[in-house]
Amino acid sequence: MGEKVVRIGLFGLGTVGGGIVELLQRKNKEKGDYEFILEKIVVKHLDKERPTSVPSHLLTTNHQEILENPKIDTVIEVIGGINPAKEIILEALRKGKNVVTANKALLARIGSQLFREAIKNDCYLGVRASNVASYRLIESLTFSPFQIEKLVGVFNATCNYILTQMEKKKENFSSVLEKAQEIGYAEQDPSNDIDGYDTAHKLVVLLSLAMGYFLPLESVFIEGIRRISYQDILFARELGYRIKLLAIAKRRDNNLEVRVHPALVPMDKELAQLEGIENGLELRDEVGVEVGMRAPGAGKYPTATAILEDLICIAKGRKLILPQQRRYLNLKKIGEIESEYYLRFNVLDRVGVLAKISGILGSHNISIKSVIQKGKAKKSLSSVPIIMLTHEAKEEATQDALKKIDALPVVKGKSLLIRVEEGIL
Amino acid sequence: MGEKVVRIGLFGLGTVGGGIVELLQRKNKEKGDYEFILEKIVVKHLDKERPTSVPSHLLTTNHQEILENPKIDTVIEVIGGINPAKEIILEALRKGKNVVTANKALLARIGSQLFREAIKNDCYLGVRASNVASYRLIESLTFSPFQIEKLVGVFNATCNYILTQMEKKKENFSSVLEKAQEIGYAEQDPSNDIDGYDTAHKLVVLLSLAMGYFLPLESVFIEGIRRISYQDILFARELGYRIKLLAIAKRRDNNLEVRVHPALVPMDKELAQLEGIENGLELRDEVGVEVGMRAPGAGKYPTATAILEDLICIAKGRKLILPQQRRYLNLKKIGEIESEYYLRFNVLDRVGVLAKISGILGSHNISIKSVIQKGKAKKSLSSVPIIMLTHEAKEEATQDALKKIDALPVVKGKSLLIRVEEGIL
Repeated sequence: MGEKVVRIGLFGLGTVGGGIVELLQRKNKEKGDYEFILEKIVVKHLDKERPTSVPSHLLTTNHQEILENPKIDTVIEVIGGINPAKEIILEALRKGKNVVTANKALLARIGSQLFREAIKNDCYLGVRASNVASYRLIESLTFSPFQIEKLVGVFNATCNYILTQMEKKKENFSSVLEKAQEIGYAEQDPSNDIDGYDTAHKLVVLLSLAMGYFLPLESVFIEGIRRISYQDILFARELGYRIKLLAIAKRRDNNLEVRVHPALVPMDKELAQLEGIENGLELRDEVGVEVGMRAPGAGKYPTATAILEDLICIAKGRKLILPQQRRYLNLKKIGEIESEYYLRFNVLDRVGVLAKISGILGSHNISIKSVIQKGKAKKSLSSVPIIMLTHEAKEEATQDALKKIDALPVVKGKSLLIRVEEGIL
Repeated sequence: MGEKVVRIGLFGLGTVGGGIVELLQRKNKEKGDYEFILEKIVVKHLDKERPTSVPSHLLTTNHQEILENPKIDTVIEVIGGINPAKEIILEALRKGKNVVTANKALLARIGSQLFREAIKNDCYLGVRASNVASYRLIESLTFSPFQIEKLVGVFNATCNYILTQMEKKKENFSSVLEKAQEIGYAEQDPSNDIDGYDTAHKLVVLLSLAMGYFLPLESVFIEGIRRISYQDILFARELGYRIKLLAIAKRRDNNLEVRVHPALVPMDKELAQLEGIENGLELRDEVGVEVGMRAPGAGKYPTATAILEDLICIAKGRKLILPQQRRYLNLKKIGEIESEYYLRFNVLDRVGVLAKISGILGSHNISIKSVIQKGKAKKSLSSVPIIMLTHEAKEEATQDALKKIDALPVVKGKSLLIRVEEGIL
């Protein structure tokens, strides 16, 4: 095999971009049967201080210095966001350049279009870094003879870090978030992570690659972790569960459920044991084969490694292969699902409150598995929590019941519902 | 994309072969962009009863009906063993046929030759089924920019099932093995599994694909689980460990350790939690990225699924890509490794025995972390166990010390040494 040279234009020199530059330098020192040459890097500000040393003649603020350079055959996009990433990637593909991107937000929205454009122009489109924890299974899933029946994963490092720290440090959400922001484990605007969007982006991309469903992002039910308190983590533990932000897809016959929300996972299950920035993915296919993997969900090296794997695929002449696109299924609305539920009510400490709440639940066909009611209110007007774990019930009925319960004068504030999910392994 | 037809000759119609036939029938009912046609099946006995219904005109005992049929473009080999599998695969490749095989024993011996032959004849050589639990990571590892520093896995379903059952049923090795044989979880001649050979085969194949080292099978240190007693499982648990048969590869600078043996794994580690036929693999690469996966290590469907994935690769025109072959490293001999050790001595219940044993260990620079000595011998001549967990020590020194201890008149039978392995995740 002759030596293959890949000439690269890099968009973005943040943490991940810096990691890529560093790893490329390191990689090129080894003598392989391919070589990576970094031709140009597009940055926003030329004179910013950077942790990785980069020759200044490589830097530019002008996109066209990459896009219109015929020598550059491969574009790496790690600037994130929709615009101008979308225009950059589409133009690169149209000019016949391979593209490697970590941009799950973009892929979740127009992945189908990007893949079509890549195939049309005979380009490689590398998306491993969009699912940095689970991409190692994606390639294999593309060739899987069977459809996935169930997919459950923990895909967001920030959320898993926050939930783990809340338990360890016995602190509430907001104070843990603040500390995570200080050390760079959460963004200054953390909404994308903690409100579940990032997890949903990854889920949509993963489903397209693993199952062949290119779902509109809007069809995914998304709920984040803002309302989880330290108290909930404690109660969940008492009941034998940990709280995780999960991505869930379930297929039965022609019905597909796709959702992102916090869930109680039984303590002894694999997903419950993921700590800090560790992410995980579990799958069961239609013949019952169950597979799981775990890997770091964030970080300079994991992401840059995923990008480099795609570069090596390009160097080795791997062709882009799309999974068979499956016919569209009936997407269940969140109200149509069934689940066990963890419910937290904040109630005034009065006689008969428990009876009232259980009465409403009973009239909605929701039966109760366990109840925790502890302590006395210190003052007659302050509230105490009542925790209930239900048997499997319909979501719509449960939400209905909750509305009625929240309207009771003895119930203070909005009650909290967290779904229970068994996981697979 | 036009419809691609793959015409298959199948060697072997045992459990896995039957599973393949069943899954191919099932798969062909779906309308995909490819079709699999089973042209011929070579069996040993034409008139054997079979669980899967197969048209009798497909069956033959004559290899050449597949090998010399120009219509057949792909050969599946699931007869196992070295001969005639070796001749079948080589002849098929030389005739330009793609080959899909589950034969880890053969691949561990002449994998390098088979891959060269495949590349030479522009054929695909599918080996996913040779590592049925971990093949999903292999594809990705082939493109990994970085070398693996450490690889630890549980690769043998039979052994893991036996060790799990010993703990659950509180029974000794031989009675659990017998029951496993009755239900088909262990072969009538179980040596290949329980003496560690199967694990070593998988490790050698995995290292060739993941790291580019085609190691001679003889260079792997192999020790099985025959000497593990229920007592050891109990003592290990008391010390906070589970006993697993591990495949281990560690690289540091220019040194490589490759070994298969039972090991004490800390209870809270991922690998310690694998139950029954579940297998697992953990990796750490040179930039510190840690990845793990678990999947069933045996069974009709998992193995047949792996075979079908390779068939789909063939249908989709995937080219065989070999990992970069790495330069040969210094292979450590087992005596050169360092480890913590679990040691079991059977001693007569006499004054001063513990002092004698610890004296010998001390003089070999082996320091003791924990000791368990329990109960009294019922008769003055019967022995009691002493368990010791050491700090990290040199294997050679430890083996030396063991020989000296075994020569003491108060020590009965051969002492047992089990290495401790932390795992990764």
